[in-house]
Amino acid sequence: MKRVLVLGSNGFIGRNLLAALSGDRDVAVTGFGRKTPTDLNGNLRFVQGCIENPDSLEDAVQDQDIIYHLISQTIPSSSWNEPEIDVEKNLIPTLNLIRSAADAGVKKICFASSGGTVYGLNPSLLTERDITDPFSPYGIIKRTIESFLEYARERHGINYDIYRISNAYGEGQDVTGGLGFINTALENIVNGRPVVVYGDGLSVRDFIHVKDVGRLLARSVHTDFDRSDVFNVSANRAVSLNELLQLIKKVTGADLEVEYREGRLNDNKKVMLDNSKIMLANPGYSLISLEDGIRETYNYLKKSSIYVEKSIR
Amino acid sequence: MKRVLVLGSNGFIGRNLLAALSGDRDVAVTGFGRKTPTDLNGNLRFVQGCIENPDSLEDAVQDQDIIYHLISQTIPSSSWNEPEIDVEKNLIPTLNLIRSAADAGVKKICFASSGGTVYGLNPSLLTERDITDPFSPYGIIKRTIESFLEYARERHGINYDIYRISNAYGEGQDVTGGLGFINTALENIVNGRPVVVYGDGLSVRDFIHVKDVGRLLARSVHTDFDRSDVFNVSANRAVSLNELLQLIKKVTGADLEVEYREGRLNDNKKVMLDNSKIMLANPGYSLISLEDGIRETYNYLKKSSIYVEKSIR
Repeated sequence: MKRVLVLGSNGFIGRNLLAALSGDRDVAVTGFGRKTPTDLNGNLRFVQGCIENPDSLEDAVQDQDIIYHLISQTIPSSSWNEPEIDVEKNLIPTLNLIRSAADAGVKKICFASSGGTVYGLNPSLLTERDITDPFSPYGIIKRTIESFLEYARERHGINYDIYRISNAYGEGQDVTGGLGFINTALENIVNGRPVVVYGDGLSVRDFIHVKDVGRLLARSVHTDFDRSDVFNVSANRAVSLNELLQLIKKVTGADLEVEYREGRLNDNKKVMLDNSKIMLANPGYSLISLEDGIRETYNYLKKSSIYVEKSIR
Repeated sequence: MKRVLVLGSNGFIGRNLLAALSGDRDVAVTGFGRKTPTDLNGNLRFVQGCIENPDSLEDAVQDQDIIYHLISQTIPSSSWNEPEIDVEKNLIPTLNLIRSAADAGVKKICFASSGGTVYGLNPSLLTERDITDPFSPYGIIKRTIESFLEYARERHGINYDIYRISNAYGEGQDVTGGLGFINTALENIVNGRPVVVYGDGLSVRDFIHVKDVGRLLARSVHTDFDRSDVFNVSANRAVSLNELLQLIKKVTGADLEVEYREGRLNDNKKVMLDNSKIMLANPGYSLISLEDGIRETYNYLKKSSIYVEKSIR
């Protein structure tokens, strides 16, 4: 029996990781987050707590074999003007986590890093061996945490899997903070509002369905805990925002009103992540196509929107 | 007139930078440190303060064109077990510095980074374009600060020169904290104590005389402040600790008793820094040879030791 702790199990990626692990009888999963979910599955143990509180972390990590650290308390755009908050709310809690995990004899920590920011301004197709040169506070602290996981390995013998995730989208993303281009665009379409693009729409991104993220990250549980690795998690399909909007138009058949606004300094012009390594580690795995993913998310949002409208009435 | 602030002007590198700048009439230097030095040069303005106090930083940076940030409040061996201290005492104060410098319109920040730790475990001859993969908290936070200087450039338009310094030695190094192999060895020889080597003595290092460090770093003041650069600062001469001890024996003519102790996890086996870039930026500059540097430091320590003995009598 492998004992798995998921920090951030209520979050967008956390819920999909839990779904990917749920069928597995050899795995005992403990969730961790600020709020106990109301739809708690019978098999799931849940610890209510905050990653900034060292005591609640210490409780949660007891007797665990492997920990997924999926909590980020900031988003790239908010970090741009307040780098100190990333230090306080992401870096320092992670140092506490490493210390607690070491004391508790945890074997592996899996970390949700950021493929879009840790490499910095490099327009090539990026592999995990490429230079990391982040310039945004969000990306810098993600990269710093990666380095501290290497420290945890050298100092405490805890292994790690670092997942540098590109842009996740799909059912259930909370876009109120300004994160998630596809979901935000689709929500705007469903609600008859224009789609906002910061910059000229020529920025190139890679989008991956969050179900794929959950399933790909689940592999760490099924491998031995005796090695450390870094993986890009992407769909290997780079599209400009303008191309993406055309694709959305085609898939949804909806009319599209686009509003271009001034670009943001913290936005990276072009990020393309080579996913060969993670695909090699998940042989036979087939990714959800961007077309299917957009269609599914759109249909889901349309349904929830009708539901919201009905419930308002 | 260029206005230069040196944070850490009382320190080992700070004093040598001040010496290198002292002859220059076009430069107005302000020192900054915890204690006002007793031998304050008439031309030097000094601000007493602590880098952890945002107010004293804010005072010091007013009206400055260029700032040297030479303060480190930790050393690699102490950081190994307490990474949080590096975050609190080095990273957060530097974020405050960046903010104050941006508000004050400072044009450039020069940072004393660590050639021995930011690259991580890479035994090649390292250029500034090589991958940085630090694993010690000391090196991780140095590298994180480097990245935040890139952020300061993108966000605030402040340029930087990052100096990745190898192992400095020479007159006036404080070895009480456990830093400085050459100076510690020479002090032990002068005082008739055995020289301590952690590990088998096969670790390879590059040593540079602190006068060279001061003079090479002074170049930032004499260049335009409109570009940002990263430089290795080394002598391009890699020696094992055992080779170094043979050289010390030859140069000093002293009997040498060596005590080998267990190696330290945070020590890097081999670090060699290519200094081509900084030498190209200082055309015609000639480095002090390791032999001359050791001889000079030894003679200085012998004299101070006699002086100490006399003053005790």
